[in-house]
Formats: sequence, C-alpha cells, structure tokens
Amino acid sequence: MEEAQAQSKNALKKAEKQAKMAAAKAEKAAKTLPVVGAKKANDSKEIIGITVSKAENFPLWYQELVLKAELVEYYSEISGFYILRPPAMYIWNAIRKFFQEKIEDMGIEETNFPMFLSSRSLEKEKEHVEGFAPELAWVTKAGDKDLEVPVAVRPTSEAVMYPYYRKWIRSHRDLPFRLNQWNNVVRWEAKQTTPFIRTREFLWQEGHTAHLTEELAAKEVLEILDLYAAVYNELLAVPVVRGKKTENEKFAGALWTSTCESYIPANGRGIQGATSHALGQNFSKMFDISVEDPEKKQDKIHVWQNSWGLSTRAIGVMVMLHGDDKGLVIPPRISKLQAILIPVGLTAKTTPEERTKLLTQLDELKATLKKAKVRADVDTRDNYSPGYKFADWELKGVPLRLEFGPKDAAQSVVSYARRDTGAKGTIPIADLATQVPELLETIQKDMYNKADESFKSHRLVLREWEKVVPALDSRNVVLIPFCEEPSCEERIKDLTKSDEQEPGPDGQKQPTMGMKSLCIPFDQPDIIIANETKCLNPECGRFAKSWTMFGRSY
Amino acid sequence: MEEAQAQSKNALKKAEKQAKMAAAKAEKAAKTLPVVGAKKANDSKEIIGITVSKAENFPLWYQELVLKAELVEYYSEISGFYILRPPAMYIWNAIRKFFQEKIEDMGIEETNFPMFLSSRSLEKEKEHVEGFAPELAWVTKAGDKDLEVPVAVRPTSEAVMYPYYRKWIRSHRDLPFRLNQWNNVVRWEAKQTTPFIRTREFLWQEGHTAHLTEELAAKEVLEILDLYAAVYNELLAVPVVRGKKTENEKFAGALWTSTCESYIPANGRGIQGATSHALGQNFSKMFDISVEDPEKKQDKIHVWQNSWGLSTRAIGVMVMLHGDDKGLVIPPRISKLQAILIPVGLTAKTTPEERTKLLTQLDELKATLKKAKVRADVDTRDNYSPGYKFADWELKGVPLRLEFGPKDAAQSVVSYARRDTGAKGTIPIADLATQVPELLETIQKDMYNKADESFKSHRLVLREWEKVVPALDSRNVVLIPFCEEPSCEERIKDLTKSDEQEPGPDGQKQPTMGMKSLCIPFDQPDIIIANETKCLNPECGRFAKSWTMFGRSY
Repeated sequence: MEEAQAQSKNALKKAEKQAKMAAAKAEKAAKTLPVVGAKKANDSKEIIGITVSKAENFPLWYQELVLKAELVEYYSEISGFYILRPPAMYIWNAIRKFFQEKIEDMGIEETNFPMFLSSRSLEKEKEHVEGFAPELAWVTKAGDKDLEVPVAVRPTSEAVMYPYYRKWIRSHRDLPFRLNQWNNVVRWEAKQTTPFIRTREFLWQEGHTAHLTEELAAKEVLEILDLYAAVYNELLAVPVVRGKKTENEKFAGALWTSTCESYIPANGRGIQGATSHALGQNFSKMFDISVEDPEKKQDKIHVWQNSWGLSTRAIGVMVMLHGDDKGLVIPPRISKLQAILIPVGLTAKTTPEERTKLLTQLDELKATLKKAKVRADVDTRDNYSPGYKFADWELKGVPLRLEFGPKDAAQSVVSYARRDTGAKGTIPIADLATQVPELLETIQKDMYNKADESFKSHRLVLREWEKVVPALDSRNVVLIPFCEEPSCEERIKDLTKSDEQEPGPDGQKQPTMGMKSLCIPFDQPDIIIANETKCLNPECGRFAKSWTMFGRSY
Repeated sequence: MEEAQAQSKNALKKAEKQAKMAAAKAEKAAKTLPVVGAKKANDSKEIIGITVSKAENFPLWYQELVLKAELVEYYSEISGFYILRPPAMYIWNAIRKFFQEKIEDMGIEETNFPMFLSSRSLEKEKEHVEGFAPELAWVTKAGDKDLEVPVAVRPTSEAVMYPYYRKWIRSHRDLPFRLNQWNNVVRWEAKQTTPFIRTREFLWQEGHTAHLTEELAAKEVLEILDLYAAVYNELLAVPVVRGKKTENEKFAGALWTSTCESYIPANGRGIQGATSHALGQNFSKMFDISVEDPEKKQDKIHVWQNSWGLSTRAIGVMVMLHGDDKGLVIPPRISKLQAILIPVGLTAKTTPEERTKLLTQLDELKATLKKAKVRADVDTRDNYSPGYKFADWELKGVPLRLEFGPKDAAQSVVSYARRDTGAKGTIPIADLATQVPELLETIQKDMYNKADESFKSHRLVLREWEKVVPALDSRNVVLIPFCEEPSCEERIKDLTKSDEQEPGPDGQKQPTMGMKSLCIPFDQPDIIIANETKCLNPECGRFAKSWTMFGRSY
C-alpha cells in the first residue's frame, strides 16, 4: 500500500476511533441524520458528517473534511498528490477568472512554457536553484531509452523563461514586458503533505515581468499584491496582512518579497497566502536581459524583473478558516451552488398530486432565483429524508438552505437557514429575487468580518519578551520590534519552541514549533524610534528596524 | 547545440538561402517594407515578412510563419517542445471558453488529476498502454534520491482516472458521471515534431464520462463530436468531415472512435482535428466500474465509458489552412486584435498640431469600435512607416486594417483593407460601429466558405483504382469503397506510396507516403450495395462496407 493511501486510511481510522470514544456525540450525530431508503443508496449507511471536532484535532478534522466534502481525493498511486474534484475546481476557476480579468486590464498577456527544464539551464542560476534542488523531479528516460540530458519538471519557471526574455526584450520599447501563465508545477516535498496547503504538484499562476526602472517594477509588485489581497478578502472572505518578507523568508534570488499573510484561528498558525517578488536585476544580470538606455544612448540597462504567484493553497486557507464541525462553509461569491432548495413536510399522507404540485413550485422558485443570477438547485432525491439532505448540504458548505413545504406554500414564503451562522427565517416568495441575493452578500460580508475580527484580536502587539511564548501557546500571532537580522530570526525560532503539545499534520501530538517571521506589515502598529527601540529578542541587543509579525506557521 | 535549436536554425538558414536565390522577389519584398528610423529599433534591419513561399516549400513556410508571427518560440533547451506565445494562447483560450460553456451546459464538471501515473497502475491495462509505452517520460529521481517506484508523465489520463471512477460510481444514480480536465500531457515522440501539429508536450482537454447504457454513451460521443466540429467550423473557419475511424486508426482500447477530419490544400494532406471515443466496457471491466442494474436488482452492469479530446493542434490546422505568403490570416472571431487602425498620410510637412489632431481622431475611432465590441487598437509607433506597419500586421494576421489620414478625415471616412482577400474600400465614420462588425463577420464566413469549397473540390469520389495515386499526387483526398479490413488498409498504404517528391517536415524533399484511412464519413457520398460493391483495392476482392475517406496525412 502506498504512503498516501496509508496516510488517508490512518487518518480516517483515527477519526473513527475518536468518534467511537466520543460515543454520545456520535450517537447524537447519527440521530440528526435519519437515513431513509438505505436499501437504495449504497452510501447511506455511512455517517456522512465530520466525525472529528475542529477544536479537538484540527489536522484530522481538516483531512476528513476535504475528503468528505469532495474537494479532493487522495491519489493512492503516488504519495503527496491529490485529485482536485469539481467543487475545488469551481473555486479555483472563480479565482482564476477574477485575477485573469484584472491582469488583462493591466496589459499582462498569457503564455505557456514547457513543463521541463534541462539540467544545463539549471547551472546558470545556481543560487536560485539551490533552494529547489532537493525537490526536483527528474525525467531520465523516455520509453525505454535513457535521455542524453535529464530534464526536471519545473518547480517554478524563472530558469525556463528568462533565456527567452533575453531574446524577446531588445529595446526599451518592449518594456514593460509582462507575461503570465496558469500551469502546474512539481515540488517533490520531503515534508508531510496536506491537501491544498502543501502538495507535491499544485496549480498556480506565475507572472514574470520586466521593467525599465526599479520604481516601475516596485509599483507593479504592490499592484499585484493588492490583487492577491482582493482574491482573499473579496472572494474567499479571508482577511490578510500585507507586508514584506524578511531576508530569511524572501524568495531565493529576489531583492525583496511582498506577501499576504493570513491566520488560522483553530491552531493559531500564520499562513502565507500569496507572494509578489521584486527580483531586482539578479536574474537580468544572470541571463543578460538588457536594453539600451533611452536617456543615455549606448549605455546598457539590465531590466528590473518581478515574479508573482498565487496557488490552489488559497482554497485550503479558506477551508481551514471557515469550516466547522458540520463541514465546509463556502463564501457565496465562490460557491458553485449558492442556495439549495429542499422540499419538506411531505409525509406518508401526501397525495401524489400534492407532491407534484410542490415540486413544480420548487422548480418555479429555482427559475426565479436563476433569473436573479443566484446559483440555485432543487434537491429532488427521493431516497433521502430532508434531515439527511440538510446534513449533506451543510457538509458541502452551500451558503443558504431554502426549505419549502406545504406550510410554506400556504403562507407564500420560503424558510431559510444560513450555513455560516445557522440563523433561520422566512422570505416572502414575492421578495425572493431581491432578498436572496442580498442575503448572500450579507453572508459573504459577515464571514469576512467575523474572520477579520478574529485575526485582529489574535494579532498581539507585544513589548515584553516574556509574553511571546504564552501568546503563541494561546493561538496568537505577535507583532514585535525586530532588528531584521537573519541570525536573530534563527535564534528567535529556537527560543520560542514550546513543550505544549498539539496535533501535527498526521493528527499525532507533537511539541510545537518555534515562531517564524510572517512579514513586516506595511501597516505598522506603532513607531520604531531609530537607535532607541530595541529588538525584542532579549539576547539580541540590536536596535529594532520594524514591527515584525511572527507566528507559528505553515 | 540541441536538436530543436538546430532544427529551427536549419529551417531558417534554408529559408534565407531560398530567399537569396529568389533574389528579385526578396528585393521586391524589401522595397514594400520601407524601414524608417532603423537606428531606433534593433529589429528593423531584418526582413519582417515570410521569405519562403507557401506553394514552394510548405513545411518551411509554416515553420517560418509560426515563429515570425510570434505564435511559438522553439524551446532550445529540449527538442520537440515549443513555447506558446500570447497570440497562440489567445486563440486557445477562445476555444477553451467556447467549449467549456457548452459542456458546462451539458452538466459536465471540471476536475484536475495528478500529472503522474505509477508504473504499477500501468500494468492493469496493458492493451491500452502498449500504444503509449514508447512515448512515456519516466521520472526516476526526486532531488538526488531514486524513486522506489518510477512514475510516468500522463500521455492521456485513462489509467490515472479510472481507478477513482470505480470508487466514485456506486449506484446508477451517479450516472451519467462526467468529468473534464484542461491540462498538459507528454508524449515523447520519436518522429520529427512540428509546432502545434506534433509536439512532445501539448495542451488539451480530456473528457471522461460513464453511462448506464451503450445508447446513452453513443449519444454523447456524437454530441461532443458536434462541438468539436463547431470549434473548427465556427471559430477556426476550418471545414471538417465527421466520421468514424477504421479499426486500424481507432483509439487503443476504444470500441469505436469518431473524428473530425480536415484537409490542408497546400500539400493535399488530411489532418485529424479531434476525436471522441466510445470506450464501451473495455475499461469498466478492466477497472471493475459497475453499478447495480436498476431494472434487475442484484445484476451488475459495467458502465459504458467515453473519452474525448481536443488539443492545441487545432491552432496549427487553422494556421496551415488560412496563412499565406504575407503571414497569418486569423479568423475574426478568434483574433485578439480584429482591427488595427494605422495613421497614414503624415509627411515632413505635417505640423505637430495636425499630427496630434489625427491621433486624437484615431483614438475616437478606436473608442467607437470598442463600444461596438470590436477588438481594436491604434498603431502609434512613430519609428515605423505605414508600409512597415501594414506588413507587420499582415504578418500577424489581423483581419482588418483601417487606414486613417488627413484625406480620409476630410471625407469623414476610414479606408480599409481585408487581410483575407486584400479587398479595399472605405467606410463612413458614421457607420463604423455597424459596418466594421458586419465586415468582420463577412470575413469569418468568407474564410470558411473558401476553405469549404477547396475541401469539397479536393475530396474525390473514385470508382477506379488507377485514379487513386494520381489524385493523391494532385493534392486530393479520396473517397473509395472499402472493405474496412485492417490488413487491406495496410496493403493500401503500401500500394499508394509514390515516387513524387515533396518537402518533408524538415523542408527536404522526400518520397511521398502512402495513404491512410482518415475516416468513414457519416455523410456517405453514395450507396454501397451489400454483396455487390467491391473494395477498390484491386488485390482485395472483398465486398465494400462503406465509402471511406483516405489520404496522405499528418
């Protein structure tokens, strides 16, 4: 049996064990999921809900959730790979469409480079490649013949693309030169993988641009960062903190890296959302990408380059942040299904005519919603009870449940239940086309606001070193005055390891890691007084350069 | 130097040689491309147009065209790989959007499977895999560690996906089960590669579906084939013949394969456009994908599967068909730029005020066109002459050139030139918003009709064997009565080789190949009388089963 399969099975076994131990709870869960027509549906014998509590064992909860909500399937053939199922692809495509439109407006064009790079091209830019070398997947054979020169699957495409930038950029008139591609990359991680968050293959977009001046390049770095923040804020309802990475955490070969950092309340971890890098002239000098200076003819200017990427990890962050013990909670704007209509109140006494009438009315409600641009459907499955359906759609995270039965029909209303808060109410049928879209927008905003408040209240500004570890142990990230020295950052990581036990990615308890810098936020919480404010690390003694956000992290 | 680079350089060298030999022609070409401001632009010293005539050496013409029109760049690192540049990606995305919307309406959902398959999973379905085995790219190392089990890059995803179909399809209620993915696949071809047409990596979509009955599956196979035909006809302005592949030419492991076949007049070759396969129960029995029979409980039905794919090859077919000695001719519906506005009539005597006025007017024209949903731009480059710009946009295949100078302004008109026919005329500015969209649609239809007539007149219905080889040598494909026996098809291939020399993919002359069956057209040209009409192969003696389309082909 392959590692991934074992991993998946282990996770589920443990989850089942836990479920048994919490017997009362499981029993209750089973009761809320009455199964009708078990003979008809093979899968109706299983408990469809999540059996692990988010609060009790976050990693196991997450693994069970992404499987049961059908976002991913473990790829049992090869460890560390996952199949992205339709609900996940829907979200990714929503992100893609949003981002693609914005960068198209900026004049960035699409390209597609080969997925392989030759071992020779790697030799050119060793500094950058060193970081990726242990994770490169090497093709050494085609059919039964050995390749003369092995080729690696791209872990990112700087080395693949920039030789052509040299060829294509021949004059300052070609600048800015801006290409983006949507593709798959492979990083054969040795660390334990987690669906979406850390996987050996993932989908992303990678933008690679070249500019005449440092200022123009820097402007774009931040424009793109704002788009990434918009993907998180506006689509995924995930708040982020924008900032700069420290030297230790910046991209290999970049001048500086900007980042969106988010936060998972369930375990207090920071998580990197997306990064936009100012590469400076590092690569343009390596690959000799230059133009004639338009001001001083004959002078050669090496172009200023950027690269920036957003991956399917974003889906994982959203799931971790919003999901609950009933399953996914998907923000309305990116949910394939925004409202699910469920027939209720049908009993053994209901006549076939009454039944048909109700289903016809439900179809009309669906048509009304579709006209109002609400992505709606009716759950007409006749082999499941309403209770089972409620649980099923809650598991899948549909933002709004609309119940409709003879009683609702008599009053010309639809009963609703919000997935995010559980709040219930009724909407007059006459107002469906206006109130449902409004309610969906309210859910979207409430989800963001709730997450934002949580992040704000767990981003502690600390002025005393003694408070750091307790703050981390209480699932906070911290903002501290920091000297920005790499060696000090390493030391801080060691100093903040804790004996506190928490479940690791495999669900097993393990000592918690030390904190890493997440970013130097652009929005600083307070002033750093030059040559006065000290770095918070008590062993350091240097002056602080900034308030830096640290945290245990993914 | 790598093979691809050598290939590319050789092609260009030969092209340059030819250009020199045809000295008069080259000189004329140079004169029609007056270069202004050569000091400013590095590339303005080169001849921008195509130096090889389509009629004289079609393969070299094609290679030069796709490079100079910036559709692709040779990937010099690894032979047989190509970089898709923005104009090519625009076309691919237009195809993607069109097809995706149609299959979404059919209820087909999107998925993303890993790019690797393990050597173990390949053992399960040897018959299917044998065809691909010589072309599999094997990853044997990650970092500096050997993999325990090597993994291959998918050449297609049947073996990757179907183990999960077994898991996911558990009841007849799960049927039809239909997934599609847009991805990249690798087939490490030994044959010489040609951009778009035959490459070692390509982009495509692959749909994989499962149905309860053979009839339902067959219905979908043809629905998808119609969509592929629509992509060719309606977007690419490429006529196709729909039909069934013979046993020899069907997909390995399929019950039957349906196909869209097109035709390249320049060399008389048939070319496969896209295929939609009825897999029958071959794979469902191999992978044990079954459901309980909804009619006779306890009986097990193996599902009926289909797979279907459309690749970036479609772009190559369009380029080969419509391109001419001036460059690309892109059908308006898929052209990123539909109309290019070029300022003309500016001389040394033009005052800066007049110049500014003209450019302002051009911007207004562009705004008018954009409002009318025409993708338009103004070529404001001041370091190139109008003649150079004309040639440049002709090379790039923009369907409509709009010239605007002081004389046009005085008459409140815009002068136009169609890329497809060269026809010229004027359009009153007041009518721009209606006449330009109409003209673009006319161009689209004329391009299709011209190609359709050409295909029709080169699809010869033959009743005498003696006419077959001369017909092929005159660049036709042929429809002949055929017994449909694989051995007879092999023999026909041998019998129709010709001493006639024509340029091969490397531009070198070589003996022409024999003909292959392209398809058994659904639309049969005449009746086959059972037990009377004979197979046309004089050595065969069997009765014919159908009129089958044969041709030399890609």
